[in-house]
Amino acid sequence: MAGNSYGTIFKITTFGESHGEALGGIIDGCPPGIILDFDTIKLDMQRRKPGQSNIVTQRHEEDEVQFLSGIFEGKTTGTPIGFIIPNTNQKSDDYSHIKDAYRPSHADYVYEKKYGIRDYRGGGRSSARETASRVVAGAVAKQVIADIKINAFVSSVGDIFIDKPYQVLDFSKTESNPVRCPDGATAAKMEEYIRQIRKEGNTVGGTITCVLQNVPVGLGEPVFDKLHAELGKAMLSINAVHGFEYGSGFCGARMKGSDHNDLFNADGTTKSNLSGGIQGGISNGMDIYFRVAFKPVATIMQTQQTIDKDGNIIEMQGKGRHDPCVVPRAVPIVEAMAAIVLADFYLMNKMY
Amino acid sequence: MAGNSYGTIFKITTFGESHGEALGGIIDGCPPGIILDFDTIKLDMQRRKPGQSNIVTQRHEEDEVQFLSGIFEGKTTGTPIGFIIPNTNQKSDDYSHIKDAYRPSHADYVYEKKYGIRDYRGGGRSSARETASRVVAGAVAKQVIADIKINAFVSSVGDIFIDKPYQVLDFSKTESNPVRCPDGATAAKMEEYIRQIRKEGNTVGGTITCVLQNVPVGLGEPVFDKLHAELGKAMLSINAVHGFEYGSGFCGARMKGSDHNDLFNADGTTKSNLSGGIQGGISNGMDIYFRVAFKPVATIMQTQQTIDKDGNIIEMQGKGRHDPCVVPRAVPIVEAMAAIVLADFYLMNKMY
Amino acid sequence: MAGNSYGTIFKITTFGESHGEALGGIIDGCPPGIILDFDTIKLDMQRRKPGQSNIVTQRHEEDEVQFLSGIFEGKTTGTPIGFIIPNTNQKSDDYSHIKDAYRPSHADYVYEKKYGIRDYRGGGRSSARETASRVVAGAVAKQVIADIKINAFVSSVGDIFIDKPYQVLDFSKTESNPVRCPDGATAAKMEEYIRQIRKEGNTVGGTITCVLQNVPVGLGEPVFDKLHAELGKAMLSINAVHGFEYGSGFCGARMKGSDHNDLFNADGTTKSNLSGGIQGGISNGMDIYFRVAFKPVATIMQTQQTIDKDGNIIEMQGKGRHDPCVVPRAVPIVEAMAAIVLADFYLMNKMY
Amino acid sequence: MAGNSYGTIFKITTFGESHGEALGGIIDGCPPGIILDFDTIKLDMQRRKPGQSNIVTQRHEEDEVQFLSGIFEGKTTGTPIGFIIPNTNQKSDDYSHIKDAYRPSHADYVYEKKYGIRDYRGGGRSSARETASRVVAGAVAKQVIADIKINAFVSSVGDIFIDKPYQVLDFSKTESNPVRCPDGATAAKMEEYIRQIRKEGNTVGGTITCVLQNVPVGLGEPVFDKLHAELGKAMLSINAVHGFEYGSGFCGARMKGSDHNDLFNADGTTKSNLSGGIQGGISNGMDIYFRVAFKPVATIMQTQQTIDKDGNIIEMQGKGRHDPCVVPRAVPIVEAMAAIVLADFYLMNKMY
Repeated sequence: MAGNSYGTIFKITTFGESHGEALGGIIDGCPPGIILDFDTIKLDMQRRKPGQSNIVTQRHEEDEVQFLSGIFEGKTTGTPIGFIIPNTNQKSDDYSHIKDAYRPSHADYVYEKKYGIRDYRGGGRSSARETASRVVAGAVAKQVIADIKINAFVSSVGDIFIDKPYQVLDFSKTESNPVRCPDGATAAKMEEYIRQIRKEGNTVGGTITCVLQNVPVGLGEPVFDKLHAELGKAMLSINAVHGFEYGSGFCGARMKGSDHNDLFNADGTTKSNLSGGIQGGISNGMDIYFRVAFKPVATIMQTQQTIDKDGNIIEMQGKGRHDPCVVPRAVPIVEAMAAIVLADFYLMNKMY
Repeated sequence: MAGNSYGTIFKITTFGESHGEALGGIIDGCPPGIILDFDTIKLDMQRRKPGQSNIVTQRHEEDEVQFLSGIFEGKTTGTPIGFIIPNTNQKSDDYSHIKDAYRPSHADYVYEKKYGIRDYRGGGRSSARETASRVVAGAVAKQVIADIKINAFVSSVGDIFIDKPYQVLDFSKTESNPVRCPDGATAAKMEEYIRQIRKEGNTVGGTITCVLQNVPVGLGEPVFDKLHAELGKAMLSINAVHGFEYGSGFCGARMKGSDHNDLFNADGTTKSNLSGGIQGGISNGMDIYFRVAFKPVATIMQTQQTIDKDGNIIEMQGKGRHDPCVVPRAVPIVEAMAAIVLADFYLMNKMY
Repeated sequence: MAGNSYGTIFKITTFGESHGEALGGIIDGCPPGIILDFDTIKLDMQRRKPGQSNIVTQRHEEDEVQFLSGIFEGKTTGTPIGFIIPNTNQKSDDYSHIKDAYRPSHADYVYEKKYGIRDYRGGGRSSARETASRVVAGAVAKQVIADIKINAFVSSVGDIFIDKPYQVLDFSKTESNPVRCPDGATAAKMEEYIRQIRKEGNTVGGTITCVLQNVPVGLGEPVFDKLHAELGKAMLSINAVHGFEYGSGFCGARMKGSDHNDLFNADGTTKSNLSGGIQGGISNGMDIYFRVAFKPVATIMQTQQTIDKDGNIIEMQGKGRHDPCVVPRAVPIVEAMAAIVLADFYLMNKMY
Repeated sequence: MAGNSYGTIFKITTFGESHGEALGGIIDGCPPGIILDFDTIKLDMQRRKPGQSNIVTQRHEEDEVQFLSGIFEGKTTGTPIGFIIPNTNQKSDDYSHIKDAYRPSHADYVYEKKYGIRDYRGGGRSSARETASRVVAGAVAKQVIADIKINAFVSSVGDIFIDKPYQVLDFSKTESNPVRCPDGATAAKMEEYIRQIRKEGNTVGGTITCVLQNVPVGLGEPVFDKLHAELGKAMLSINAVHGFEYGSGFCGARMKGSDHNDLFNADGTTKSNLSGGIQGGISNGMDIYFRVAFKPVATIMQTQQTIDKDGNIIEMQGKGRHDPCVVPRAVPIVEAMAAIVLADFYLMNKMY
């Protein structure tokens, strides 16, 4: 209940602090009999892990997942899948300077106020390192909904946007550059910009677009648990996310009904898709697409004023190895959360 | 589980179709001993109900709530508050034309596919009429968190935006015009525009901004149930919503960390508030503000092509009395859902 | 969360005090397309209602259920089924004597301490009148699991027990006498005994046995949500219940393994059935049977000493029309809760 | 949702098969700032572990728990407590004989039917080894409700019962004998009987009584989540449990109201306590006591007939090192589940 679980039928619960013994989680409700492909799980972990390119953090974390239960002779058994990801490369001494101080735009202050205690090492539970567990669960979820194609990619970094509709992009190119932007020319500009930002000791925000294809009609529950409401919550639960829109999104709020309505073809598909594949909270079989806004990483390599526990104004210099821009590494996290939401609704829909 | 409940401690479950006997709901987990102010509940219902001005639908629905339990001698007792809102003015014959046809960008098609049956009268369960129950629950929730100020208002209609920060607006003016825009000059333009849209038989989208003030530090649970993630889900669960952003939102994705970070004052408040009052998913005591995008209403008074159950292409003309723009009436719904989310976290936080 | 909901997929939430406007509830998660048989719902309501014979309370309550949603043209639509049962015959003046006093072995004292307020009229929320809503939900649940046969009956009143195994009883006789005991000779003794108890102004306890037949293999979730654990919780949640046992029950605790083990036939059925149709928390296709113990009703027509709010010792005389023995009227409640549990697991099992 | 979680506020989720890599779990909702006493956790683990005396199984399992998160400098932080218990001494070859056969009165058959796959080694997920995780969580829960005294003990083995009320027992004696029966003379008889049963290659059932003292008034939620209903579910979820009764229990079903009612003293305590410390589902401050029935262990060291996967009748001989009587080792498990239920309601009650 304290917010560490997600899902109803396909349910994940995670634990772990960035500098504790290990992260991990439990996937409950995974159907039995799935032959798990461990290579794709490993691949998703590698896409998220630090140190994979020179535009992301240079921390080295192995992020190797160990499955402890729920799998027998390579197949899921229907029992809970417990897993851990040992923290092997955490340097606690990096964080002594924040033991008694609150970093601006981090969760240090609110954790202290809410709990009266905090594991200050590397952000503790509020660290984005927690998302490693989500990627594991998402990689399993993808195998539950194997027919659904999930493709996320970086659609903007700062003011550099892909200026094309997703339909003309070749998703197989997403992994061909360190930014994870499937449009080569834009990717190059983004990469260049992120390098420059890093040199400044600064950080920059960005957006990720995610496209879900081949989703069966009928996923999502009306009223409160609409498919896009759950997708929205799932995305907003990712560290640094400040916005979510699907289909026409915020642009739709400027349109007229006559332009916005998606007219039907005889087979139930629609001529346009401003609805983003969801009507009344339920998938209609068209592509689902949504966009997620990430704020710039709060830890910058510049001197900032802040306060300590006693309310003294102090100066703080960012230390450690941090991402100048979080979106390249967040692509597999967005996919993972989308997969978890879809797997949950997919199983729920078997009732009907 | 089928999506008709919201909340964990302060929990609402709703029922009802637009043309059934009654709508209603159950509020479970409302603390005992609250002297309910029924006038403010009635007021919120009136703000949502149709027919209140000439820029909204001219349907006449009384929307009178009857409380059936959980209240004794004017006070809540801690037991579930059951309530109903009878449907007194629903004309079923209005809807015969859609019995066997699917309206574009409505939920008709997906309901039919998911359930194999649908109450076609007025959209049935997918009708925004369901939100009347949310407004009742929200009005009760507001009294649970009486110290928190919740102010929503229309911030854009089509391309007409308020071009001022919320801090300079006078929220007491929101109810002074039928658009529910606290900036008089902008309100006048919006009103004029909506009238024109209505004459065209068309509809238009818009946005609502909501500001939560005097929120105690510590609301929200880290990781999955972040305060803004729940606010996002709650808003996205409202009919016609296509986007949600809080704090710096999508603009934040274009910024640098050095510009985005909110530096602390000695007392723990922050000099800027691009975090939108939430850090790491937990309220930090600063104003929480967010913006919600509503697509244009799908029912237009123009002829559109669509399909019937058998896949025949047919022509359909919108009938009935519908809103040319939904945002004025959605303001109390946004407030209601915000109140429900806050009440839930407020009670949850008593554990700490 | 405050304890007024039951179930995960097939989920019921109830509201209502014994002397409020109405009782009622919401059934969420009922599958679509079920042609509801309203006569059987009415029948179950009549089996529970007061005044049906001269060995139960002589209160007259109509207990007429009004369905408000979720049903269209006689069929369930998959949307929540809201219903109310108006309180038409409640005499509030009967209860002035307990306004400031706590009845022994009732919930008056604990409600006052927990909530600081209580609706003292007729026990308020703690009244067994709440079970009327459960019977409605149970009657719907029975139609979700139409192939499963549910038969509960009174197996003991005071020291009068049926001394036969359930296999030799003719369940079609259960409704042939006011006690709801399918064994005629025993029923006659029980009836005579209850009459005598009533003359004494006293009450007596009893047990109900319930047999579930034709249950498919596989219902129940291992570990915490075992089928018998949920059945146990469901039964223990009924007013006045003090015990639950299934299969060999408390007798099994005296047995040896060599006598207790159920050996398999070649087809997977078992030669004996001390397991009570459940192994490892999962149904094995054999009959499920369990027994529920009800304490004697606390309200007796005799003078008892008790205390008032200020801790003064006072004398209290039971008033009103109460049941001398609750088990005859509790038979449909036991069946209803069993049906709700089974429907929930039945739908959940569709995942596999 | 697949049944591997318990609790709402204080919530435990477990994972692990008897012969997998490790068991473990996540405790979510543990309040921050508790200085954990690891010695008492270890002690409870030792009370449950195999091989502790010569009347329990002679398997040697270290059952050492490793905490991975949620604890910082010896204190709970309010974040989820992840833990694992490595399986260090599991001999997989012991179980080849049951790979294709179903043991009588075990869960082999139903797992195979439900999931289509099972980890046959040692019962897999259905093994009572899972309860090791519960004991860890329970030991933490005990520290959340440090003022409440929880004492379980063996009250019967086969036909040997303690013939005294719990009030005259000295709970400090429970651990003084391997049976965990606080009455020395009875304990000696039980021990002797269990030795004899073991020699016969047989097993025997028993009961455990549990007493909860110093429980504050007000724990439990009315209607479905009554305190005793949750205690009942928690106990029935323990392997081999076939019955639960609290207060007067099944005996209460034979009594008259005039004998059963608990009259009040001026201070709100009661002269008798047949209610078992709970009225209307809510604790009244008196001792809570309940009794749990365990069937005899299904694995016996005798030859039994059973079937294999193909429905062939085969002979099977129990192998391995199993408990002749499960109740001595189940005492800490009963206490653990009671502590988990109490901690959950205790935290929930802070809302009021």
